[in-house]
Amino acid sequence: MEIKKLINPFTFEVNIKNEIISNFDNHIVRKLSSMKSQYMDSQAYEDLLKKEDSLVYEVYEKLAPELPGELMQGMSIVHPGKVGDEYFMTKGHFHKVLDTAEIYYCLKGHGYMMMETMDGEWQAEELKPQISLYIPGSWAHRSINIDDNEDLVTLFCYPAIAGHDYATIEEKGFKKLLIERDDKPVVIDNPKWKTA
Amino acid sequence: MEIKKLINPFTFEVNIKNEIISNFDNHIVRKLSSMKSQYMDSQAYEDLLKKEDSLVYEVYEKLAPELPGELMQGMSIVHPGKVGDEYFMTKGHFHKVLDTAEIYYCLKGHGYMMMETMDGEWQAEELKPQISLYIPGSWAHRSINIDDNEDLVTLFCYPAIAGHDYATIEEKGFKKLLIERDDKPVVIDNPKWKTA
Repeated sequence: MEIKKLINPFTFEVNIKNEIISNFDNHIVRKLSSMKSQYMDSQAYEDLLKKEDSLVYEVYEKLAPELPGELMQGMSIVHPGKVGDEYFMTKGHFHKVLDTAEIYYCLKGHGYMMMETMDGEWQAEELKPQISLYIPGSWAHRSINIDDNEDLVTLFCYPAIAGHDYATIEEKGFKKLLIERDDKPVVIDNPKWKTA
Repeated sequence: MEIKKLINPFTFEVNIKNEIISNFDNHIVRKLSSMKSQYMDSQAYEDLLKKEDSLVYEVYEKLAPELPGELMQGMSIVHPGKVGDEYFMTKGHFHKVLDTAEIYYCLKGHGYMMMETMDGEWQAEELKPQISLYIPGSWAHRSINIDDNEDLVTLFCYPAIAGHDYATIEEKGFKKLLIERDDKPVVIDNPKWKTA
């Protein structure tokens, strides 16, 4: 057999209470200022930003070799909050290698994953503890925290070659948005959405 | 964009208490009788089998299209027990597409993952709740339950094209075994091991 091992097996500990994984390789922090034009209500966004450049979400990454058979993984934390009526959320992205899947396993909190394909099909799935979500290849995805107080905490994994395409969503937005109406999450059309 | 979606996103619920996932596609059951010659102590194996064809482990699979960017997942349950001094364990396998990784996330119980490469390097990692284990491509792996009473329950995922090669391990065995000595797990050489 010629195929040799590239790295050794490794473990990390998932600390659900403290919302962190041990031995992570990267800690990504996204503040409100990095999400310009992602939220529907531009005025609410500017007003909130003037008050505080809030921490919207964080990601702890555990890396693997960028090869077809390997997997990247990590923990995602979306903090509670709203911009106007729109919940705090991740930027959302397609994978650069479009036809690569991703799995999210929810550990804490309450939220939704908003998903859509390049040809405009969309789907939203509820996230709560012990729910495992499968996002097949070719679906963009954005985590949304609908709880007023608690963080939305998930574990994720995806093929190591997937990469991230944030630009498509930054340009055209998601077709659907999740906003709060009468204390409940409601899916509405995104007035700023551009077809691809 | 020409790449079209193959399946829609889906969720399942992980029931840790009842050790099952909702909406599973397959339920695999491995009894002692299916593990002939896997255990070191052949006499203890035959004696135990005469008494009862015990349930050693179970797997609930959630399938995805067998394509490079997709991921298979599921829940694995190794029941407590011993064949002589050797703990109940899974058969263990390489992936048919050898250089594909696998992730295990432990939900319940206490055990080890025994791993080895084709060229005889080996590694054992402890599994307990909230431990995530990364098995890179080219490492065979076997789950072992070291608890006297509790099941070892893990979630797993791996590239959908990986496939299973059980034959190599059935033929040559694992280089190292985990047995109980003075109430503790100890790694020993497998007297039946054959080099590849």
